[in-house]
Amino acid sequence: MTIREKVFSIILKSFKRHGAEGIDTPVFELKETLTGKYGEDSKLIYDLKDQGGEQLSLRYDLTVPFARYLAMNKISHIKRYQISKVYRRDNPGRGRYREFYQCDFDIAGHYDPLLPDAECLKIMYEILSELELGGFLIKVNDRRLLYGILATCGVPDDKFRTVSTVIDKMDKISWDKVRREMIEEKDLSPEIVDRLGEYIRLNGGLAVLEHLCNDSLVSQNTMAMEALSDLKLLHSYLEIFGVADKVTFDLGLARGLDYYTGVIYEAVLLRGPEEPHNVPDNDTDKIAGFGSIAAGGRYDDLVGMFDSKGRKVPCVGISIGIERILSMAERKAEESFKNIRTTETQVLVASAQPHYLEERMRLITALWSSGIKAEMLHKKNPKLLSQLQYCEKTGIPLVAIIGEQELRDGVVKLRDVTTREEVNIPREDLIKEIQKRTS
Amino acid sequence: MTIREKVFSIILKSFKRHGAEGIDTPVFELKETLTGKYGEDSKLIYDLKDQGGEQLSLRYDLTVPFARYLAMNKISHIKRYQISKVYRRDNPGRGRYREFYQCDFDIAGHYDPLLPDAECLKIMYEILSELELGGFLIKVNDRRLLYGILATCGVPDDKFRTVSTVIDKMDKISWDKVRREMIEEKDLSPEIVDRLGEYIRLNGGLAVLEHLCNDSLVSQNTMAMEALSDLKLLHSYLEIFGVADKVTFDLGLARGLDYYTGVIYEAVLLRGPEEPHNVPDNDTDKIAGFGSIAAGGRYDDLVGMFDSKGRKVPCVGISIGIERILSMAERKAEESFKNIRTTETQVLVASAQPHYLEERMRLITALWSSGIKAEMLHKKNPKLLSQLQYCEKTGIPLVAIIGEQELRDGVVKLRDVTTREEVNIPREDLIKEIQKRTS
Repeated sequence: MTIREKVFSIILKSFKRHGAEGIDTPVFELKETLTGKYGEDSKLIYDLKDQGGEQLSLRYDLTVPFARYLAMNKISHIKRYQISKVYRRDNPGRGRYREFYQCDFDIAGHYDPLLPDAECLKIMYEILSELELGGFLIKVNDRRLLYGILATCGVPDDKFRTVSTVIDKMDKISWDKVRREMIEEKDLSPEIVDRLGEYIRLNGGLAVLEHLCNDSLVSQNTMAMEALSDLKLLHSYLEIFGVADKVTFDLGLARGLDYYTGVIYEAVLLRGPEEPHNVPDNDTDKIAGFGSIAAGGRYDDLVGMFDSKGRKVPCVGISIGIERILSMAERKAEESFKNIRTTETQVLVASAQPHYLEERMRLITALWSSGIKAEMLHKKNPKLLSQLQYCEKTGIPLVAIIGEQELRDGVVKLRDVTTREEVNIPREDLIKEIQKRTS
Repeated sequence: MTIREKVFSIILKSFKRHGAEGIDTPVFELKETLTGKYGEDSKLIYDLKDQGGEQLSLRYDLTVPFARYLAMNKISHIKRYQISKVYRRDNPGRGRYREFYQCDFDIAGHYDPLLPDAECLKIMYEILSELELGGFLIKVNDRRLLYGILATCGVPDDKFRTVSTVIDKMDKISWDKVRREMIEEKDLSPEIVDRLGEYIRLNGGLAVLEHLCNDSLVSQNTMAMEALSDLKLLHSYLEIFGVADKVTFDLGLARGLDYYTGVIYEAVLLRGPEEPHNVPDNDTDKIAGFGSIAAGGRYDDLVGMFDSKGRKVPCVGISIGIERILSMAERKAEESFKNIRTTETQVLVASAQPHYLEERMRLITALWSSGIKAEMLHKKNPKLLSQLQYCEKTGIPLVAIIGEQELRDGVVKLRDVTTREEVNIPREDLIKEIQKRTS
C-alpha cells in the first residue's frame, strides 16, 4: 500500500498538472453497454447474477464507461482522469489479475488534429520517467495505417480484426509462428502473408514513415496516407514536447480492442540496467518480457455508439496498468531497503512506570490535536522494553516517555529509537521538536 | 470529485495520525464468506453469475472481508484503515446508493479493555469535527446491555435479533408504532413491551449508566452489568480524550448487523444552525433526519468464524459513510461559493497572435517540467478572447501570453484573470512568479 500510494501520487500529479478533472463512474454497467467493444477478450467480462432488475456486468476497462458517461450527460469536451479498478475473468498470474487498477487520462472533444494525442503521449512519458522504472519505449501506430496496409496486401476486409489479433502477438512469439497462424488458422495465402510481413515488421523513427510514404503500394491507399501524414505531424509535436526520443513507430502494433480508430500506442519497459539514449532501429529484442505497462489511442466513434442521435465526440486517451508497475516498484524497493514502513507514525507515547495510562492518554490527545501522528500501546501498564520493541518493529522514529520525574519537571523524555539518545524536552516545546525531527 | 478528495484527505489524515496502515482487500468474496453475517440485510448482497469457477459475491461492507483477511493471513494484531467501495442491491435514493465508499478504521488484537474502543470513538469525533458538518452526536450502547435488558424484560432468546431490528427503527418512527410492531408482528405481550420501553427509551450521560446499575432488575443480569462497567470505563477514557461531550448513551441503539458482540456506536448530525454545547438528556428530536453518518462497534467473534481452528482475534472498528457526508458537504459548498473548480490548473499558456502554436508548446513543456499545472487550448490559432473565456469558465487564475513582442523581449505577459492586470515577466522569473501567485 505504501508503494502503491507513492505510485498513485506520481500519476495523479501528472494528470492534474495537465489540467484534468477527476470523474468517477459506477463499477456496474448494463451488460449491453459492454457488448461488442472488446473484440476477442469480451469473454472475460464478469456478469452479475440475475437477481431481478437489469442485466449488469462489471466494468472491463474505464474507457467504455467514460464514453457512455459522455453520451448520457451530453458532454462534448472534457479532459478527465480516473483511477479505479476494473474486472476481468482472467487466470491470475504473471502480472495478470482479476481485479486491478487502471489509471486513465482522456481528452474528449473537437480540437486541432493530433494536439490532444501529443499531450497524451507527453503524459505517458512524464509518468514513466518519474516512476524511474528504467528504460522504456513507446510504440506508436495508427489503426488506419494498419488497415490500409492489410488492404494493400490483399487481406479481405472481414478478416482485418482477426488478423490484427494475430499481429498483436508479434511481441510474444516469433514471426515464423505468426506467419504460420495467419496461413493455417486465418486462411491467408502465403503470398499475402509474406507481403504483409514486409510491412508489419517495420519499426523505427521518422525514417520509417518516410519510407512508407514513398512505397508504391502504400502511397495508393488514401487511409494509410492520411494516417502517415498525421503520424508525421504527431512526431513534430512530440519533438517539441521532448518526448520523441522514446517513441518508435511500430507497424506491428495492433491493440486488440475494437474501439480504436486512429493513433494507437503502447509503452514497454526495456531490458538491461542502463537506459539507452537512442532508440535503435530494431529494438524488439531489448524489450523486457513484461507486456505493456501503459497503452491507449484514439477512439472517435465510441461516444456516438451510446448517443441516441449518434452524435460523435472524438476522444483520445491513455490507460496505465498499475499492477505491473507496482510489482516492478516493489522489487526495486525490496532491493534498496529491507523494511518498508507501513505506517507514518512519528512518535510513540510511552511510560517507564506503571499507572501512567491516563497521563499517556492526555499527552497523546495533545499530540493528535496538533496533527502529530502518534500511537500508544493499548495496555494499561506496558513494559518500557515492549514499547521500544514496538517502535523498532514498526519503524517509529521517536518515543515520548513520561513518568513521575518528567511530570514533576514539566518535561517529556524524547528518545531517538535509532541512536538511543534521550533528551528532556519542556512540554511546551515538544510538538515543535517532534515536527523538527521527523520532517 | 473535488469535494470528495477534500473529505477523503481529512479522513485519511486522521487514520494515519492514529498509526493505521492501509490494506486493500478484493471486491469479490466467496458467497459463503458473506452468508449469515448481516442479518436481515443479507438479501441486499450482489451475487456474480456462475460463469464457471467459484460462487462469488461483491463485498457488502469492509468489515467481514477484513476479518476473513486476518484469519487467512493469521494476523493477530493490526491497526488498519481501508477506503473502498461496497455494494448493495438497494433502491437508490435519499442517501442510499448501490455502490458507495466506506472509510473504515479497525483495531484487531488482544489489548486492555476499552482502550481500542476509546481510540475508535476519538477518531470518529476528530473526523466529524474536522469535516465541519455542524453539530453531531455519538450514540453509544453495548450489545450485551441490550440483550441483558431484553432478557430481563422477558423477551425470549430466539427473538433477540428480530426484536433488535424493530428497536433500531426508533430513530425513524414513533414509540407507539414500534410498540405496535413488537406486539403485533413479533408476538410480544404488551407487558413485556411496555417494560422494555422503559429501558430502551433511556438516553443521556453517565447518569443513565448509574441509574441502570442501581436498577433492581438490570443489576441481576451479569451480562448487562459487565457491559455497564465497561461503558463506565469507556466514558472515563472518552473524558480524557476530550470526546465525552458529544457522546450519549442510548439504550435504543441496536445496530442491525449480526457480528457485533460488545460496544456499538453510531454518529448522527444534529439539526439547527448552532451547535449545542451540552447534550440534553433527551435529544432525539434534535437529530437531523439523515440517518447515521458513521457507525461501528466491537466484533470479537468474526475472525474466529473464518479461522480453521476457530482462533479468535478481538476487533473493534468504525465505518464512515462518505456519501451522506458528501451530499452535506456539497450542499454547504454550493451555498458558500457558486463555482467549485474541478481542476487545479494554475496557468493557461496563450497567444494573442496566430502561428504561435509551437512557441506555446515549448513554453508549456517548460512549465510542466517545473511542476506547474498548465493547460493550453488544443487549437492551432485560438482567439485571445476564447482563451480568456476558457480561464473564466474553468477558474484558471493566470494566463501566460506570448507573441512576437514578448518573444523578442524574452518576456511573458502574465495576466491576472480576475483583475485583468498584465505584467511582463522575464522568462527566467516566470515559474517563480506563477508559483508565488498561485500558492
